[in-house]
Amino acid sequence: MILINGIEADQLSVTDRGLLYGDGVWETIGVVDGKPQLLEWHLERLQQGLQALMIKPPDRDMLRHEISMTCAQQVRCILKLIITRGPGSRGYNPLTVESHTRILQTSPWASYPAEYAGQGIRLHSCETRLAHQPKLAGFKHLNRLEQVLARAEFGDEYQEGLVRDYAGHIIEGTMSNLFVMNEDGSITTPDLQMCGIAGVMRRFIMQTLENFGIQCHIRAVELMEVEQAKALFMTNSLIGLWPVHEFSNKTYQIPPLVRELQAAIQNLP
Amino acid sequence: MILINGIEADQLSVTDRGLLYGDGVWETIGVVDGKPQLLEWHLERLQQGLQALMIKPPDRDMLRHEISMTCAQQVRCILKLIITRGPGSRGYNPLTVESHTRILQTSPWASYPAEYAGQGIRLHSCETRLAHQPKLAGFKHLNRLEQVLARAEFGDEYQEGLVRDYAGHIIEGTMSNLFVMNEDGSITTPDLQMCGIAGVMRRFIMQTLENFGIQCHIRAVELMEVEQAKALFMTNSLIGLWPVHEFSNKTYQIPPLVRELQAAIQNLP
Repeated sequence: MILINGIEADQLSVTDRGLLYGDGVWETIGVVDGKPQLLEWHLERLQQGLQALMIKPPDRDMLRHEISMTCAQQVRCILKLIITRGPGSRGYNPLTVESHTRILQTSPWASYPAEYAGQGIRLHSCETRLAHQPKLAGFKHLNRLEQVLARAEFGDEYQEGLVRDYAGHIIEGTMSNLFVMNEDGSITTPDLQMCGIAGVMRRFIMQTLENFGIQCHIRAVELMEVEQAKALFMTNSLIGLWPVHEFSNKTYQIPPLVRELQAAIQNLP
Repeated sequence: MILINGIEADQLSVTDRGLLYGDGVWETIGVVDGKPQLLEWHLERLQQGLQALMIKPPDRDMLRHEISMTCAQQVRCILKLIITRGPGSRGYNPLTVESHTRILQTSPWASYPAEYAGQGIRLHSCETRLAHQPKLAGFKHLNRLEQVLARAEFGDEYQEGLVRDYAGHIIEGTMSNLFVMNEDGSITTPDLQMCGIAGVMRRFIMQTLENFGIQCHIRAVELMEVEQAKALFMTNSLIGLWPVHEFSNKTYQIPPLVRELQAAIQNLP
């Protein structure tokens, strides 16, 4: 089912600034038994992005109503939510546009092989680097060519790719966030002030670690730390948590903490 | 008139990767008496972009045929040409997609007040900086949020904004390229290896300068050079050439060379 501005449709005007400039934001949300998981946090990040881009946000109640409508009958599916600045006259100037376009689309649940979460994944080291752009970092906007280029680097022999920035720091996966378990048992996840997307599942993992009494440091991460880590894992709203089995010719163990975090993800609010 | 994959239409599937990721390239071409100006150079840059993004290019003859169809009856208009990677299944991976989407759209000619080209423009100094991303520099892709943010900084009191990169170098206007006339009469235009769009009109101006026997240097440009320049001008395919009258509380003269270049633009191939 696809709703565009509240009406069932699957086509969009070619003058929409979402197409012309990637002028918009989006969320990908897991839906279980009609309930979008971690919805408040997804809406919070969406709101952050709309504010950063100065796009007029949709009415909250209307948006919630449309989300309920799309998800109500779904046992398990993916909800994709896109808000663009809407159709515009020619030129970059966003200040003349007062509308927006809301697109809500459900699609079948992404079923990945159980072994990715179980035995772990092979992680590719991407050549494509992320540019430093603090004005666009953290939220999920529609300018995603860096991710497309990074993802093009590897085929089915890897399940995810690790991406650095031009300073050489480790930032994230092409579609997921990275957590590093250090030798002392503490956890680190890369700082995303300059580039990268701050995942909603990353936020859930950080909160869960805090509940477990485990320290999670947010800071710059070097390649060497990743290579020397005790364990690595990748997270996003659809995959949940995948431990890394192999990266850069090294194999990693899967500590009990990974199973505890995965168990927590089974009971998402 | 809008042609999508050769058929008259004005709507696009919401699963098109042009919308989802800005996964595509575009050109804006001036059309005079049914003839798209500097068409070969526009198609060359389009081809470069498609290659950089590994998008299957449209058949050249078919594309030319569609361009002729859209422009044939037009005395004076703008042709916008967008090629996206087409509709895709979920996820960034571009390698599973073998199609593309072609969008050709004509719109009325942009008529700017004659004084912009005559007496010159007021140029705003933008706070928004461009990120260094050599993999996406030079060609005209659909990830344009930096331009949208830069353009949002100023209103009608300015006609264009000058944008720097994070290293502090001057790169371009929000929608145009910059040329600097130095005190010795030589011309400089910023190097675009790390960011920026290498305009087709920029190329025409560089070639025309060469024909005039005037040296045009392509290199990093500092703010101080711009402030101390003898003259400045901005170029793109639709505005042609606008001299800068005022920037950063300084006024600039308009040398005879500007008029000679504007005259050359009147007779574009």
